[in-house]
Formats: sequence, C-alpha cells, structure tokens
Amino acid sequence: MSNPFDLIPLVTPLNSAQLRSVGVPQGWQYGIADRVRFHELDALNHVNNVAYLRWFESLRIPYFSDHKLTSYNGEDDPQVVLATNSARYFKPMFLNENYVVTGRTTSFRNSSFVMEYGCFVGGELRCLGESVIVTLEQDGVTKRPLSDEVIEALRADGATKAG
Amino acid sequence: MSNPFDLIPLVTPLNSAQLRSVGVPQGWQYGIADRVRFHELDALNHVNNVAYLRWFESLRIPYFSDHKLTSYNGEDDPQVVLATNSARYFKPMFLNENYVVTGRTTSFRNSSFVMEYGCFVGGELRCLGESVIVTLEQDGVTKRPLSDEVIEALRADGATKAG
Amino acid sequence: MSNPFDLIPLVTPLNSAQLRSVGVPQGWQYGIADRVRFHELDALNHVNNVAYLRWFESLRIPYFSDHKLTSYNGEDDPQVVLATNSARYFKPMFLNENYVVTGRTTSFRNSSFVMEYGCFVGGELRCLGESVIVTLEQDGVTKRPLSDEVIEALRADGATKAG
Amino acid sequence: MSNPFDLIPLVTPLNSAQLRSVGVPQGWQYGIADRVRFHELDALNHVNNVAYLRWFESLRIPYFSDHKLTSYNGEDDPQVVLATNSARYFKPMFLNENYVVTGRTTSFRNSSFVMEYGCFVGGELRCLGESVIVTLEQDGVTKRPLSDEVIEALRADGATKAG
Repeated sequence: MSNPFDLIPLVTPLNSAQLRSVGVPQGWQYGIADRVRFHELDALNHVNNVAYLRWFESLRIPYFSDHKLTSYNGEDDPQVVLATNSARYFKPMFLNENYVVTGRTTSFRNSSFVMEYGCFVGGELRCLGESVIVTLEQDGVTKRPLSDEVIEALRADGATKAG
Repeated sequence: MSNPFDLIPLVTPLNSAQLRSVGVPQGWQYGIADRVRFHELDALNHVNNVAYLRWFESLRIPYFSDHKLTSYNGEDDPQVVLATNSARYFKPMFLNENYVVTGRTTSFRNSSFVMEYGCFVGGELRCLGESVIVTLEQDGVTKRPLSDEVIEALRADGATKAG
Repeated sequence: MSNPFDLIPLVTPLNSAQLRSVGVPQGWQYGIADRVRFHELDALNHVNNVAYLRWFESLRIPYFSDHKLTSYNGEDDPQVVLATNSARYFKPMFLNENYVVTGRTTSFRNSSFVMEYGCFVGGELRCLGESVIVTLEQDGVTKRPLSDEVIEALRADGATKAG
Repeated sequence: MSNPFDLIPLVTPLNSAQLRSVGVPQGWQYGIADRVRFHELDALNHVNNVAYLRWFESLRIPYFSDHKLTSYNGEDDPQVVLATNSARYFKPMFLNENYVVTGRTTSFRNSSFVMEYGCFVGGELRCLGESVIVTLEQDGVTKRPLSDEVIEALRADGATKAG
C-alpha cells in the first residue's frame, strides 16, 4: 500500500516524477522498474553478477529507440555496437527485491557515446555500470556520425560533447 | 492509452478482473503480465523455446507461496520438486510483445499435483505448459502429504482430487 | 586417469564406441559430453530445471545438420520448428558433474518427427526429454515433406515410420 | 585433423603447451577451450555481449579453486566477492567457433586482487575483461588477507604485489 512501487508501472520506462517517487536521485531521467526473479539468483542465493549486465541491456534497447539512435527496423539504421561494458557491484541483491535500472548518456563524440547505468533499490545504489557505444554504417566498419536528432536527444538527457 | 496493459501492473500477480481485462479466458485466476525482452530472443529473432519454461518458473515461485505450498524460508517447508515439465508451442512471439503467463492446478493427489501454464497475448494462447510437482520432506525422499491449507487453496484455484 | 571422460572430446558429437565407454546404453548413437557449469545451478544449488532444455537444444542443433534436416544457411532449407518440448527429471545434478546429452529420432511422419533426449551421468539417466518437430517451407505455414536423404538418416538412427 | 582443437580437451583447464598449440600468446597460463553454442547468440546472430561475462565466470570458478582461493566447501573458506567486472569487445563471434577463455591475476594487495580475462579464437583476441576481486570473512564485511599459499599461487601465475 505504502510501497511506491505499487503506483508505478514495471518494465515500462518511467518519467522523472516516477523515478523520484521511488528514490532515484536527480540526474537520471530514464529508468525501468522491475523485480528480481528466481532465475537471476545463483547458487550463492543472491543476484548473479552477470544478471546486472543483462538488466543494462534490457534498459539500453528501449533507450536507443527513445533517443533516436535506431528504429530497429529501418534500412537506414546505423549499427549500434557495444565496445565496452563494465559494472561495479556495491551490495548484493535478493529474490523479489524491487529495483530500478537507470541509464543516461554522459558524453558523446562524432560517432560514439558513453552510457552510464545505475541499479537502485529504494534510492540505494547497488550497482553502477558504463558502456562505450559506437555507431557504424551497415558495413560494420565505417563510422556513422551521430545525427542532429540524436545529439539533441542525448543533450536533453544531460550529455556533453567530449574532445 | 487504449492498451489495457497500461492499466495493469506488470510482474505482480493479477486478479481475475485484471486477467479478464487483458483477454485471458475464464478458468485462469492467477497470472503475471510481462513484456518480451531482447535477451529472450534467439538468432531466429523470436522468443527462444526455453524462455517460455523460464516464464513458467517465474510464475510458479510466487504461485507456490500464494497457495501455501512453501514459505521459502521456514524450516518446516516441504521440498517442492518439479518431476516433469512440458510446453506446447502454438505461435512465435516477438520483441516487446506484452503477454500474461498464467498458472493453475488442475488436479492433486496425496503428495503431488499437476500445474498447467498458459502464455497469452491479447487473449490468444501462444504456449501451453504442464508440470507434475511432488512435495517431499527435507530429506528429499519421504513424501510429504499436502496440508489441509494447501488443499483448500488448490481447490479454490479449481483443482480436483485425482485417483 | 581412469575417468573415461578424460579420453573423449567434450562438446563434439561422440560416436557409439565413445558413448558406450562413458556408460550410455545401447540405442543411443548420438550424444555430446559436457560438464555442469556454475551458471546452470540455481539458488537450490542444483542444476536448474530449465538448463536441461537448454542442453537438449544444444544437442539438437548439430543433430539437425548431421541428419541433413538443415544446412543452417541454404536458401532451400526448411524451417525446422519445435512444436512441443518435455522433460522428466529423475535425480538432481550438481556443479562439475560430467554428463552426456543424447538424442535420437524415434518416429517420423511425412513432415514431422519425434526426438527423444537423455541426460546420462555414468550410465545413470538423470533426465529424459522429448520434442515433436515439424518441417515447414520458408513461408512458415506450408508443410515440407522430409526428403529421402533425411528419412534415410533418421532410419539409420533407429526411427520408424509412424501412422 | 589438422585442427589443434581436436587434440585438446574442452571445458577442462589447459596447460601452457596446450594453450600455445591453439594460438594463445605467452603470458597466459590458464585457459579453458569451448565452442559457441546456439543459445549464446542473440537476435543479431552473433555472441551476445553478456555471454562473454558468463564465460569469464565459468573460468573464474575453477581458477579460484586451482589457486587455493577457496575450496567451495570448507568452513574456513573466505567469501570471494566480485567488486567489478568489465569487458572490451574487439570483434564479433559466431556459432560453432572454437575459442579459449583465459584468466590470470595481474596484481594483488592484502585482501584483493585483479584478474584479467581473454577470449581467443585461433590466437586472435576477441574480448578482454577484468575484475577486481575481494576476499572477506564469512561475515561478508571483515577483510580476509590472502594466505601465503594463495600469494604463492598468484605469483606463480605472474601476479605482482601492488601498492
């Protein structure tokens, strides 16, 4: 009843007001709420280290389309390629915990950008992640510059031009 | 807006009214709504055959506690053991589809019961599953009879005594 | 040293002599040896029920190409579609156990066949599975009859014509 | 026949001579060979970014016991906790590719150490990873210093004392 998670949708990207209501701090505008499932635990009975990276991926896919990076079906879409992935684990997580995975772009260059991910439980940061992401032409080799539309969306998310 | 999934919680067990509102037919009283994620697709670009069994498991865990089969932390809990698992696939599923996984107990005996699972998209059955489940003492060998409390809960879910 | 698993390749399909050497009974001509990994355990510290279905899939993919069902890259390949999946669990499995997953076709019809899977540890059957598999044209609707070449390969594997 | 993978065991840790025979460069003394499976591909038809982290985990578990960090069943074992995880992706991987995942400890401190992972296909580095790992008492809080036996094993693997 008093659980704010009862009032927000799970699996659907949350707006800023919803993110604040579940304790995600200022600076994150994009997040998805979910709940720890049994298969995400490992034999040590807490969430497996790899599951967090899975959550970051599940956040990244809608983030890309919501920030115009790809439409996932257009012929003119770039290849959006993960160049690096990282996670820093602060505290274990357990079955049935409600959490929010957040994502934001911190900086961008001509044809790449840096995303940061957070995993929050009631405002407490459990895991922090980061990826360098590169945009290529469909040949998988030639760099594809970020479009003005993408740059605008990333700036609106708080990103700054690097270099 | 007109999408009934916008009005129901995901990941949390739904009540009968909510199940009906998203097209799940009469006869199913327990279900959980969710959305297909990228990692559940395989190289053929549809939901992998194994993912459905994963969804059935994610449904089964809260079903067991909601029907008093286990508290997941009591010393007096039985071992609830999966003896069989099956799935019948009717139609492929794709990224971002909203679905409801449903579960019900169809019959029970002294120390076992049969669960049936459904996976519905807008009232259309995409996959049907079944498990025989056995309850054992903590020694993992001796049969543990279903308690009166469990039997009552399973009957309320529509189960009939078999044999 | 005396462990027969030291003498056979893992992950590569075994021949009949190799299968016999690790205790797989007569009647199975196709199997792949492997070892339980940490991520295949769940919070109960034994192999998760879904992992077995994953192993059956990993066996099925090379079985299909070795029995001419698909080349996985030809334009003339049929769609090979899993219609059902089942598993019967006999005994739990644990970290680092060496096992063999076996597969065979028990019967076939015009455009479908039934595969059976076993999971053996030192000749002991831990799990038995079955799938009905259908072959379709690339339209995903029209039935594609099994070719003579496939039928010959399935008969050599012990399959009989049904119906 | 001429494929060196035919001559080495899969899934079992390789010795230095075996590592060299499949093209893994000097400096790596511990590795496990394996083959890309269907379920490790994602909808883009190459190995999913998360699968590499899974491979690093599957390498880490036997590495820990082979380097005396834990026996996985002793009461006196430390908690070996992953503090960070990272991966740098160089080139995509595909179905049925044979690869070797390697691991080594590059440096250690009183109660932590840094592991590096590589993923090689025929001597070509496809992915490079790193983890900071911390050893704690069973209370999960107090730091547990590395034992002399562990330090000796890590030095033999090429690690140097940091700080």
